[in-house]
Amino acid sequence: MLLYNSQVSGNCYKVRLLLTLLGIPFERQEVDVVDRSGRMELLGELNPALRVPTLILEDGQPLAESNAILCYLAEGTELLPDDRLERARVLQWLFFEQYSHEPNIAVVRFWVAVSPDPPPDAELQARRAAGHAALAAMERHLATRPYLVAERYTVADIALYAYTHVAHEGGFDMSGYPAIGAWLDRVAARPGHVTIDA
Amino acid sequence: MLLYNSQVSGNCYKVRLLLTLLGIPFERQEVDVVDRSGRMELLGELNPALRVPTLILEDGQPLAESNAILCYLAEGTELLPDDRLERARVLQWLFFEQYSHEPNIAVVRFWVAVSPDPPPDAELQARRAAGHAALAAMERHLATRPYLVAERYTVADIALYAYTHVAHEGGFDMSGYPAIGAWLDRVAARPGHVTIDA
Repeated sequence: MLLYNSQVSGNCYKVRLLLTLLGIPFERQEVDVVDRSGRMELLGELNPALRVPTLILEDGQPLAESNAILCYLAEGTELLPDDRLERARVLQWLFFEQYSHEPNIAVVRFWVAVSPDPPPDAELQARRAAGHAALAAMERHLATRPYLVAERYTVADIALYAYTHVAHEGGFDMSGYPAIGAWLDRVAARPGHVTIDA
Repeated sequence: MLLYNSQVSGNCYKVRLLLTLLGIPFERQEVDVVDRSGRMELLGELNPALRVPTLILEDGQPLAESNAILCYLAEGTELLPDDRLERARVLQWLFFEQYSHEPNIAVVRFWVAVSPDPPPDAELQARRAAGHAALAAMERHLATRPYLVAERYTVADIALYAYTHVAHEGGFDMSGYPAIGAWLDRVAARPGHVTIDA
């Protein structure tokens, strides 16, 4: 498989982490996430959204959107439940991640730690507040559970881990989220876990 | 089933449309999308994100995130493919919808047509530009296909239809997207289709 990758992107990290856990070998092609010129030429035929990660499967078929890739790769493994409701709950957290979590926590981290051209401070503060609301939702949920769904480690945990564990790089004070902290440690201690810089 | 609903929300419309197509009876509880006070009391135990739609299944279990609800309800029907890659491509479009489409097209519509307190014009214009990028991605894809995935009507079409067909209410000029226009007509002509005000 070939992964159109950015090493600083948590969305790409999700895919690298799962491929590694599943023992699937893959090659990488690094894509610039600051200079987006040339995206249409590079990804236009592969991913209408022109984003990374985009994964080229063994038969040459492209697949995009990090959380769709997670579900595809985890199909038939213990990382994606077979039970219809548990599977839907995994999806519930994956959509929460892309709608309520990533656009706030990942985007603030990008603006603070990566982008040469961050937006006005008011917009950053609004995103930071929304990011804290997402973290509060996770904290309430994890206060009584070891993992997000089905009492076990699933792709929902992989997806939410990706940007939660680097939220501090965006200036998020994580000290008010002890259940998240314990869950982050639990995920990082999983056999075969690799870090975002791997 | 009980649907925590907003009649103006495209996310809720997706669920109402699919429930109707599948012939599943449901009750509605209307939730205010402008005055969000009381959400924790109303939805705190049901949906960590405190958003609508939240669906209470027949056995009392809550399920949230519109696109996760679509996948749950469509399981085992022709509206969600069995094929592993086609299913992943449906998810790809569902995640595209929640990340690249809804936060721009739905949010601009909300600001223009619903909200009493829209943001500064620069932010609205930035969202409108990102919305046009999402529409351009759909247009490229639909130029050579009748539906988004697998040459047939799936929950991916239901999800993308919801806010695309009311994009003009947010001031989006749709005249530059003929393939989208033909696809909107195709979806609206499906047997059993109901409108957003139903």
